Amino acid sequence: VTGPSPSDSPPSMLEREIRSQSRWLLTDIDGSGQATRSAYRRLSRPDVTHIIVAARGSSDNAARYAQYLWGRALRWSTHMAAPSLYSTQTPPRLSGAAVVGISQSGQSPDIVGVLAAARDQARPTVAITNDPTSPLAEIADVVVDLAVGPELSLAATKTFTASLRAVVAIASVAGSRELRAGLDRLPELFDQTVSMALETTRPLVELTNLDDPAGNLLTVVGRGTGHATAAEAALKIREIARLRAEAYSAPDLLHGPVAANGAGSAVLIIASPGQPLPYWSDLADRLIADGVRVTAIVSGPQSRLTAHLLHELPDDLPAWLFDFVAVPFGQVAALRLGLAKGLDVDRPRGLTKVTLTT
Amino acid sequence: VTGPSPSDSPPSMLEREIRSQSRWLLTDIDGSGQATRSAYRRLSRPDVTHIIVAARGSSDNAARYAQYLWGRALRWSTHMAAPSLYSTQTPPRLSGAAVVGISQSGQSPDIVGVLAAARDQARPTVAITNDPTSPLAEIADVVVDLAVGPELSLAATKTFTASLRAVVAIASVAGSRELRAGLDRLPELFDQTVSMALETTRPLVELTNLDDPAGNLLTVVGRGTGHATAAEAALKIREIARLRAEAYSAPDLLHGPVAANGAGSAVLIIASPGQPLPYWSDLADRLIADGVRVTAIVSGPQSRLTAHLLHELPDDLPAWLFDFVAVPFGQVAALRLGLAKGLDVDRPRGLTKVTLTT
Repeated sequence: VTGPSPSDSPPSMLEREIRSQSRWLLTDIDGSGQATRSAYRRLSRPDVTHIIVAARGSSDNAARYAQYLWGRALRWSTHMAAPSLYSTQTPPRLSGAAVVGISQSGQSPDIVGVLAAARDQARPTVAITNDPTSPLAEIADVVVDLAVGPELSLAATKTFTASLRAVVAIASVAGSRELRAGLDRLPELFDQTVSMALETTRPLVELTNLDDPAGNLLTVVGRGTGHATAAEAALKIREIARLRAEAYSAPDLLHGPVAANGAGSAVLIIASPGQPLPYWSDLADRLIADGVRVTAIVSGPQSRLTAHLLHELPDDLPAWLFDFVAVPFGQVAALRLGLAKGLDVDRPRGLTKVTLTT
Repeated sequence: VTGPSPSDSPPSMLEREIRSQSRWLLTDIDGSGQATRSAYRRLSRPDVTHIIVAARGSSDNAARYAQYLWGRALRWSTHMAAPSLYSTQTPPRLSGAAVVGISQSGQSPDIVGVLAAARDQARPTVAITNDPTSPLAEIADVVVDLAVGPELSLAATKTFTASLRAVVAIASVAGSRELRAGLDRLPELFDQTVSMALETTRPLVELTNLDDPAGNLLTVVGRGTGHATAAEAALKIREIARLRAEAYSAPDLLHGPVAANGAGSAVLIIASPGQPLPYWSDLADRLIADGVRVTAIVSGPQSRLTAHLLHELPDDLPAWLFDFVAVPFGQVAALRLGLAKGLDVDRPRGLTKVTLTT
């Protein structure tokens, strides 16, 4: 157990799940590497020109991580499915595609429907799921089982990080030394950032002035794989703390929505080392000039960024690993903000573990 | 000129631009149909298995419209590019892809970069732009010129609708009677909905209680092509009225973010006829039970939906056309909310006509 509990009451299941993640990342779920190798082989078949990932909610954020990681590391053209297009008798033609479904429950009919369309069109399919007996697993050619046990709090935490790890593990089959070394360091690094987040995010709660109407507005910014981290942070904060949190890539934020961030609102920047300092500092400076309260997760040269609060990670991390181990800051911020609002963080209102959208 | 001006002062350029849209939709920008036919031919080449659309801001919402319309009407597998992946020497491999860039200015370097990568890999490219001499137009194999003249207000209105029209026109080359008949009806229908929106959205401003902190929260919900309409409505409201507006598909809203919509917030539902009544009424009933103020744009059976305010469109519209002509409601809501807040709706703060994101 790392760091102090946020209050004198027994820790929430959510907090215990957040703390448990590095343990699950240590557990080699696929000892022989057979499932990830098999998934890699399907996705790299010569007749596969592009990959379509079908997912919802947190898993959709893992899909976005795959889009950037696989795009950068393997030059795989990876895109997110619009699942509703596959609910008809005439779904889009999938020539050249391989389809990956990500769903912790493996139950969502619309995600299963995308893989069913791929199977009907004789295209390869991979399921990344926490339930190897689920409909999604049953329909897929290859199943990568997350095997992290049932999630005791309603909001997805360890199944999200396990999905990210599966995405990296599949890519690492191609032999990248950087990816393999990063996977080896992941559990220890993640444990460090969980501790750091638990010890230092209290000021974020103060920056997010809950008594001020504008304090209900929280924007999370990231780029590339960090866009996935930002989207997941916003989703957790929204689900658990019921704040109006949103994620944007820096360019999309500059293309308009920045207009709605006024004085008193808060922005969390995942200042990935994949971009030069000015990329992030120009954004931060503009926000601060507008009276926005800025928190940033930084490393290396980005530590010179001006912000109200900086979380500094080790300075030798490649962008994909930085963005991965930054995940706990969003999770813990959601936990802290939810507790500060007196909410039940384990059973957030409006959330169910399995959402049967069709 | 349709409907009364929202106040006694001279109408804003934004209002005039909104009113002018049906006139531009009447103007056949591509009299011979040569550019749209040529675009269709590139995109339907036998070696094209999938289409990647690169865009930002409002144009990204037009890209989403293309994803659903082309997916449904032509079974074209269409996805949105992650532009930042193309800023390196090793962008994703584009075998089997055709690339479409949508940008009213044609200037954004990151969008031009995606088409440059396609050209380098000898893949077909199409530009949809309002400037046929722009860098985007220069790099593309085929240019569909929107030709709607310069936009006098900063927020994109007529260039967005012209982009949607170009997307439909390209699809109609395949010969669909429904698409061609819809294109013929479009200017008159659009004129009707502009008038309806100008005459009836005042109550939406009242439902969005600007004196209540929760009133700053506005969520727009749509599905399929209506997801594009919802995203564009949220973007306009955000840019012009500086409210915290967000778009969700109904399934994504149910997968978590619905938790942050509490009593006092407002939701606008684009209740497209593409879904059965219960799909929309279940969502509306749940939101109303939570104390959310619900406005819905409806037609046909969906008119039986329970909401605080209904806008009823003609009942014989296919979903893609319903979702297209629902666009003015978002534009006019942004105008009205911006004026109600005393903002300069023509030159919203933080917005520039050309955003040079890289």
